[in-house]
Amino acid sequence: MGRPLEPRDPGYEAAVRDSFALQGFMTTLGARLVHVAPGEVDIELPCAPALSQQDGFVHGGATTSVLDTACGYAAMTLVAPGVRGLTVDFTVHLLEPAQGERIVAQGRVVRGGRTLTVARGEAFAVQREERVLVAVMTATIVTMAPRA
Amino acid sequence: MGRPLEPRDPGYEAAVRDSFALQGFMTTLGARLVHVAPGEVDIELPCAPALSQQDGFVHGGATTSVLDTACGYAAMTLVAPGVRGLTVDFTVHLLEPAQGERIVAQGRVVRGGRTLTVARGEAFAVQREERVLVAVMTATIVTMAPRA
Amino acid sequence: MGRPLEPRDPGYEAAVRDSFALQGFMTTLGARLVHVAPGEVDIELPCAPALSQQDGFVHGGATTSVLDTACGYAAMTLVAPGVRGLTVDFTVHLLEPAQGERIVAQGRVVRGGRTLTVARGEAFAVQREERVLVAVMTATIVTMAPRA
Amino acid sequence: MGRPLEPRDPGYEAAVRDSFALQGFMTTLGARLVHVAPGEVDIELPCAPALSQQDGFVHGGATTSVLDTACGYAAMTLVAPGVRGLTVDFTVHLLEPAQGERIVAQGRVVRGGRTLTVARGEAFAVQREERVLVAVMTATIVTMAPRA
Repeated sequence: MGRPLEPRDPGYEAAVRDSFALQGFMTTLGARLVHVAPGEVDIELPCAPALSQQDGFVHGGATTSVLDTACGYAAMTLVAPGVRGLTVDFTVHLLEPAQGERIVAQGRVVRGGRTLTVARGEAFAVQREERVLVAVMTATIVTMAPRA
Repeated sequence: MGRPLEPRDPGYEAAVRDSFALQGFMTTLGARLVHVAPGEVDIELPCAPALSQQDGFVHGGATTSVLDTACGYAAMTLVAPGVRGLTVDFTVHLLEPAQGERIVAQGRVVRGGRTLTVARGEAFAVQREERVLVAVMTATIVTMAPRA
Repeated sequence: MGRPLEPRDPGYEAAVRDSFALQGFMTTLGARLVHVAPGEVDIELPCAPALSQQDGFVHGGATTSVLDTACGYAAMTLVAPGVRGLTVDFTVHLLEPAQGERIVAQGRVVRGGRTLTVARGEAFAVQREERVLVAVMTATIVTMAPRA
Repeated sequence: MGRPLEPRDPGYEAAVRDSFALQGFMTTLGARLVHVAPGEVDIELPCAPALSQQDGFVHGGATTSVLDTACGYAAMTLVAPGVRGLTVDFTVHLLEPAQGERIVAQGRVVRGGRTLTVARGEAFAVQREERVLVAVMTATIVTMAPRA
């Protein structure tokens, strides 16, 4: 986007990590937060039978869940202290069967605004050294201060 | 759509139920297939801490996963015997916090074609007698015969 | 949605009609506002060679433009006086070739909130008495009071 | 994507240009095809009052129309001779008001398949030397040989 993304909350990383730790669903999936930087969050999801669809690949819903979470927290890295982010909508395109050792979901802010943030996400299936792009997402997140 | 939706496979319900049973992820979520009819599939998801986001509501990814599955199997009710369905893309709008006893995800075919099917989904949070629309989806599913 | 949609601005219809009249692009397309009610706007687009894609059907971009406008103004029927609406994002599924005498695009609010509105749209191609659903949209509109 | 995109039709550029020239709607908009390469198409749209929304900016529908066309033709650069492409669905996020001298819409193939192609698009508003990203799209295009 040209403009460097500046965090408004110096404690953004702790805020993201604390919130992620509260997500029971991420624990259920086995997902791990592996990268937090201004406008950027990566989440890793080890492939497992508990996440499978009918052919043994990782279910599109599981891939989507970590992409959604990566995009939402990428938005959260840029908000003022105490501001919450809520996903409004997202679109996912599933490009290839998701299989391998793990899925890496990367959320990146495209436009960070006071009220709305747009983030794009890419999910890769990783097998040894090889990475295959398996899904892309665009998400809209509303970021609002709590009402007085 | 005016036109009644006609299944091309008289064994469509068994095909859907057998495939659903193979999805390890649906078992992990605790999701149940509760309605299968031509162009229609409903899935129920009991709310549980294992599915939560940071505020204790059902994670948007969990709601999306059952919506996606309901739309995909709604498409599958209309295909010829042996034809597979794969989700190409979907869009979800999260309208309200998902909380209550359970989520009911309803997938409905809007246009069933030989190659592509478009389905829309609605997810309701159910608490006693009250149903709140918490999410809507539109999904594109590719339905293709196995290559010879 | 169960709840009736209540306009907050008794002059909502005039506000929508005045804004529509300012859209040079709607004039260029030949589009007409044919229905304005709380949470509902319909726009008609006569089919013409000036709107065609390469096969002579109405271009998906033209159909999308009137769907987007119908959804945006459907949101605007519900806002307080002086509040503006801006489309944040939308998804369109093109279901059938758009041909006939005219396209009718119907925008309907699914969830009207203080900051964000979600609307769904349907576009029909009309030929004599026959209506064919040619496209569906889901749109997110941000509705905000002008800053002091 | 790592893999270079290889055209299957050596006459891909002429095929795209011939088809574009048949689109009455592109002429109505004043759009010009300015770049055609394997997996890549750029379209320019001079800003004009005939394309405006109510505030004088370029209407989101006009920006979307050239993005859609750029993505569709980007897909068409990669198909076998005689194969047609039809847009199935797309999602657009409108990031900033579109104003300036012209809009440049760039369509790029993310995944080119035998049946389905996914392309992403970016639209920039250009004013003198400055380019502002005003919209992003992800589109699904079905590419099929004519039936015998």
